[in-house]
Amino acid sequence: MNLNALRNMSYGMYIVSSGKDGLGNGQIANTVFQITSDPTVIGVSINKQNLTHEFIEKSKGFSLSILNTDADFKFIGNFGFKSGRDIDKFQNINVKHTSLDIPVVLDNTCAWIECKVINSVDCGTHTLFLGELTDCDVLNESEPMTYSYYHKVVKGKSPKTAPTFINN
Amino acid sequence: MNLNALRNMSYGMYIVSSGKDGLGNGQIANTVFQITSDPTVIGVSINKQNLTHEFIEKSKGFSLSILNTDADFKFIGNFGFKSGRDIDKFQNINVKHTSLDIPVVLDNTCAWIECKVINSVDCGTHTLFLGELTDCDVLNESEPMTYSYYHKVVKGKSPKTAPTFINN
Repeated sequence: MNLNALRNMSYGMYIVSSGKDGLGNGQIANTVFQITSDPTVIGVSINKQNLTHEFIEKSKGFSLSILNTDADFKFIGNFGFKSGRDIDKFQNINVKHTSLDIPVVLDNTCAWIECKVINSVDCGTHTLFLGELTDCDVLNESEPMTYSYYHKVVKGKSPKTAPTFINN
Repeated sequence: MNLNALRNMSYGMYIVSSGKDGLGNGQIANTVFQITSDPTVIGVSINKQNLTHEFIEKSKGFSLSILNTDADFKFIGNFGFKSGRDIDKFQNINVKHTSLDIPVVLDNTCAWIECKVINSVDCGTHTLFLGELTDCDVLNESEPMTYSYYHKVVKGKSPKTAPTFINN
């Protein structure tokens, strides 16, 4: 078994955000995908330890910011390697609130998506949240960042809490 | 709401195969992603109408062939726009069988993954199968094909039964 096979799977790079009552948080995720098109349902895998997990459970909603290739290591590091329990990740970041009052990060983002949670699956270390599309928009024509681009060009790594962390 | 936002999500291109008792089938899928790393669990969204869905339910296993950029329109069309109820998709295709006796397509493939189904989620038109990794290998150093590459370079389209079909 050669676990490097898993490195050939392709993903995008997203900030998954959620919040309630004026508080909110966002985190980097690559494990985001559409499950059905009628209705449009999107799945995201979120580590149970993460603050964003708490907010998604409380608010029953989340947003996705589809990052573009302008997102640099520092920007991604703010959302990927720090905890919202220690810092306010939205400080100095352009954030809007959706009609469901979910925060959406707009910086380095080509498009955003808002979902309401319709189901969740306990997957041990992570919860797979299934969200039905409630709103979305394209912000600009910039190029979406892929997970491969993040590793090869941004020279980024994955934290141990990531669904796609490979320990070899 | 601008549904073009969904077109900015990134995916790979895979053949999901399954089989039992000497019979088998494979189909193109892009909606494949890792959900946890300990253990390694991978989710795939498969349309309930598809023959591969039947085989996954019967055999409780599936394989993923991670397609590379050599996969041309004809090869992908064989697995993406035809039904295994009408033709034998594996004719003239290099297929091996895993230790779980699941077929794996080797042509135009950079790496493959075998999973046993540990859970499944009814998502209306599709079933989200959750599979725990049982085996995987890298075949060569070729470049994985992305869904974006498929649309831009191979000039491919998505069938109406795909989870990411966008009707606009």
